[in-house]
Amino acid sequence: MILRDGPGAETSAPLAILCGGGAFPLEVAGEARRAGREPFLVGVVGATDSGVEAYPHVWVRMGEVGKLFAALKERAIAEMVIIGAMTRPEFADLRFDWGAVRRAPELAQLFRRGDNGLLAGIAAIIEREGVRIVGAHEIAPRLLAPVGKIGARAASAEDETDIGLGARLLAALSAFDAGQGAIIAAGRVLAIEAAEGTDAMLARVADMRVSNRLRLSGSAGVLVKAPKRGQDLRLDMPAIGPKTIEGAAKARLRGVAVSADHVLITERQRCAREADAAGLFVAGFAYAPRAG
Amino acid sequence: MILRDGPGAETSAPLAILCGGGAFPLEVAGEARRAGREPFLVGVVGATDSGVEAYPHVWVRMGEVGKLFAALKERAIAEMVIIGAMTRPEFADLRFDWGAVRRAPELAQLFRRGDNGLLAGIAAIIEREGVRIVGAHEIAPRLLAPVGKIGARAASAEDETDIGLGARLLAALSAFDAGQGAIIAAGRVLAIEAAEGTDAMLARVADMRVSNRLRLSGSAGVLVKAPKRGQDLRLDMPAIGPKTIEGAAKARLRGVAVSADHVLITERQRCAREADAAGLFVAGFAYAPRAG
Repeated sequence: MILRDGPGAETSAPLAILCGGGAFPLEVAGEARRAGREPFLVGVVGATDSGVEAYPHVWVRMGEVGKLFAALKERAIAEMVIIGAMTRPEFADLRFDWGAVRRAPELAQLFRRGDNGLLAGIAAIIEREGVRIVGAHEIAPRLLAPVGKIGARAASAEDETDIGLGARLLAALSAFDAGQGAIIAAGRVLAIEAAEGTDAMLARVADMRVSNRLRLSGSAGVLVKAPKRGQDLRLDMPAIGPKTIEGAAKARLRGVAVSADHVLITERQRCAREADAAGLFVAGFAYAPRAG
Repeated sequence: MILRDGPGAETSAPLAILCGGGAFPLEVAGEARRAGREPFLVGVVGATDSGVEAYPHVWVRMGEVGKLFAALKERAIAEMVIIGAMTRPEFADLRFDWGAVRRAPELAQLFRRGDNGLLAGIAAIIEREGVRIVGAHEIAPRLLAPVGKIGARAASAEDETDIGLGARLLAALSAFDAGQGAIIAAGRVLAIEAAEGTDAMLARVADMRVSNRLRLSGSAGVLVKAPKRGQDLRLDMPAIGPKTIEGAAKARLRGVAVSADHVLITERQRCAREADAAGLFVAGFAYAPRAG
């Protein structure tokens, strides 16, 4: 894992951060500054939460590609992190500036792709302009889940068994480009995540418990999260945060386990505090390279 | 696969059918009679739909174990099929007769198990009384999905690719005692079934399409169903029926593909008609034995 010798981590070159929603962008900006890099934040109207004003920044609308590139060039910025929640816009809703109009046919093509394909295509356009995309985890390794517990509670021996089963299940699914998450309770697979995402999977388990489709007493089950093999972690790093803890608490799980060094945690202190209050454990497990 | 030489298929021994909800029990009864066996239907109050009156029958309440065994013994019935939808009762809701009271401690233990464990335990109790549990597919092989299309539409070459991917995905999940179903669209895994069941998985995909979480145009995706490896097909055979077709239509899928000879189809004519009306294909695919 890259820690101190990440790209630019020892330089003072400026770093752009394209900010989605949530707390991640400001956390990455803080970590970049700690590492001696001056962050330049790109707020996206309708996506980025407030707070970017604390740093040098520019606001762009979705589709203002020309404005984005002009701002980066003006500051001679050669590296950018893309981080935070982003709702996929409709192509028709994009606000095209001249920089975008020039690329409109290519952009239109990209919008026919799935989310990952769209993101990869946008990253490719940015890199063609000489701006390298780097992963948030390379700039802010402290946001990565460590091995072991976060918060007061630890996983029990039975939880560890469930975590192992979940990790092997996700590894087996990886060959199918699916499965960033699963929920396991005492050896039983309660839910497997595909296109719906982790929050919807947690809500499903909560619903099944309320409707008595799942007859489990007390807290039961562990959410296990790990990246898919071959996933581009610069663009789509698995992440958890307070919303995950809230969802896990509503589903009355025993805890949340994530692949250490391969999953980002936003608002870690708050996650730990809220997990403690809900009686949940949150832990990083050692990542076993996936077979095949 | 057992066809003509199934247990009792060539005898005229009477056959009990413990009837859950839906059309399956009467279909199995009809097939049993066609094969020269006299069906004796056991209706379960609150679970079985009307229609059992067309055959020699008895009604029991959940928990009337003594009454069930007495009825079977009186008719010297040595084989029973358990078929149809059954909602798991609460232990406290069981109507205990003397036959049940005698077994109450054992039954209480069984109700601490998962659905499969409960069913296996009940089957074991029944078999200890000298009544062999046989699979509906052994008595009524005509209810099994054939290879190839059911209804007018056939799977396209691209659908076949998705079916292959889904079948391999389910095979990989089988080692985890999970995955009777998945939904695949042009190589992308949209949903994987675990404890929620097929209908809920179809509803989830329908929801994701309405909410635009899944941006797919027109009909897209195939529901793929197959049994888990090691699944006791006498007790828990994967099945589809008109409700599956309705769910697939609401999710705007292209079709439904099931493992031929390993999945039951209830109301096949109606399924074919409703699939045709919705523009869906329904097909059985050749079963590849699962590796491992």
